[in-house]
Amino acid sequence: MKLFTGKHAGRDVAGRIDGEEAVVCASGAGADRAVLSMIEGGPEAQAAWAAMEEERVPLAEVTLSAPLPKPLRDVFCVGKNYYAHAAEFHSSGFDSSAKEEVPSAPVIFTKPTTSVCGPGDTVLGSLDPTGTVDYEGELAVVIGTRAFQVSREAAMDHVFGYVIVNDVTSRELQKRHNQWVIGKGIDTFCPMGPWIATADEVPDPGALRVVTEINGEIRQDAPVADLIFDIPTLIETLSRTMTLLPGDIIATGTPVGVGIGFSPPKYLVSGDVMRVTITGLGTLENPVG
Amino acid sequence: MKLFTGKHAGRDVAGRIDGEEAVVCASGAGADRAVLSMIEGGPEAQAAWAAMEEERVPLAEVTLSAPLPKPLRDVFCVGKNYYAHAAEFHSSGFDSSAKEEVPSAPVIFTKPTTSVCGPGDTVLGSLDPTGTVDYEGELAVVIGTRAFQVSREAAMDHVFGYVIVNDVTSRELQKRHNQWVIGKGIDTFCPMGPWIATADEVPDPGALRVVTEINGEIRQDAPVADLIFDIPTLIETLSRTMTLLPGDIIATGTPVGVGIGFSPPKYLVSGDVMRVTITGLGTLENPVG
Repeated sequence: MKLFTGKHAGRDVAGRIDGEEAVVCASGAGADRAVLSMIEGGPEAQAAWAAMEEERVPLAEVTLSAPLPKPLRDVFCVGKNYYAHAAEFHSSGFDSSAKEEVPSAPVIFTKPTTSVCGPGDTVLGSLDPTGTVDYEGELAVVIGTRAFQVSREAAMDHVFGYVIVNDVTSRELQKRHNQWVIGKGIDTFCPMGPWIATADEVPDPGALRVVTEINGEIRQDAPVADLIFDIPTLIETLSRTMTLLPGDIIATGTPVGVGIGFSPPKYLVSGDVMRVTITGLGTLENPVG
Repeated sequence: MKLFTGKHAGRDVAGRIDGEEAVVCASGAGADRAVLSMIEGGPEAQAAWAAMEEERVPLAEVTLSAPLPKPLRDVFCVGKNYYAHAAEFHSSGFDSSAKEEVPSAPVIFTKPTTSVCGPGDTVLGSLDPTGTVDYEGELAVVIGTRAFQVSREAAMDHVFGYVIVNDVTSRELQKRHNQWVIGKGIDTFCPMGPWIATADEVPDPGALRVVTEINGEIRQDAPVADLIFDIPTLIETLSRTMTLLPGDIIATGTPVGVGIGFSPPKYLVSGDVMRVTITGLGTLENPVG
């Protein structure tokens, strides 16, 4: 099932995507939290959405937002989680937070809920006073059931689905504040979407390919299998000491090819268009303003 | 006004404290989010709570939880924000994230909502497999009104009130994962309370004193005036690029005297009792389990 949130004919809607059609499963007040409620509702709620057929509208008429536009809490993110990207970041001079090139343990930070925006939304690069805005195309995992001290072996049972996230970053602020919340947490710097694909649609997440284009030029292109810490390891590590909740989002890291990997760095400027595509998860396109 | 959340006679309650009495302003389902709703409701909701007189119970009969037991989102925290603490942390060997002793810009990280617990709750030190649990008594600011690009001069207008937070930390996990979410985000590692004092009760936050005792021995004792980045600067810095929301919590940093400041480090062990006291904000006491 592919789950969306958005607007249709001026009304908030949420539901599932069926080919070229959107099946509306919730509308009006609260529709912007309906996908979250459905995840929290477990298999029964999911089955109810899968069976719903009352209202179909052309998908092209729906203005999609992030599928979880008001996340339960801040988005968990993983830094330096592809070998070649860890190397490019380490040698860029912007990695103030570690001595080692390849991390020996997952590097976890968060993006505040206010950074989330949807497909097509303008990423407000002008909010970064340092002019060092960079893209990071990523596969994100959505947690389906409460997870505490879950082993690698059982971890995938807690995955609800997958969605594209672009972990947009101010490199200078990331460096200046040492911890990354400020450089990563700027309003609109967490585009997400266009939909969540449920886990049954993705039998092998490692086989997914993350492709990021800037103004049509391919900058990142890597299989998720290249992750240093794979999804089961991330869930095991996080849940070893903290409880993951239904609706939690974990952005798993970005491959080689970010702007600061170039010399000189290729920072984003107003008018640029970012496109992140992942197999089966669609394309998340955002202009930079 | 002093605002509390808790349980009375088996029922969820929230309200204000009046001397030795608790005035119940909300009860039953949703009472655990009533203080947050009141903050979001603005001056009108605040006036309504101040005027409410229907039900009074002895405060001693209320089991207090964190005043915001289900925060809107993760708790913002500031690292290395007192000079003497910045020095002790830097020289401890656990500061993997910076070359400089005194930060040139605020170091911001978050504690996940699942780390929040209340007065008297056991902090589950046993969840830290490295046995390096440490305390950090802190003054936290609660935001009252949406803040975006707010100047130092206007910043205090956005403060709703103040509360004690103990930023409990696994030093080894803090170091191992470079970014601090894992080391700081362990379940129960964010005790908060006993109440929120509204801003009108605290004309000069700099005059407040943060005192932390472990098993009755004073370990931390400093005025908030010693902050490197004061509250207006923190709000200006955060809101320069991101929107702060009503109900957001910002823990402002801890003074000198944490466990790793000693040689050898004085880590917390099961049975220890932590007490953080701040002028006018009460005492937050938590045993370590």
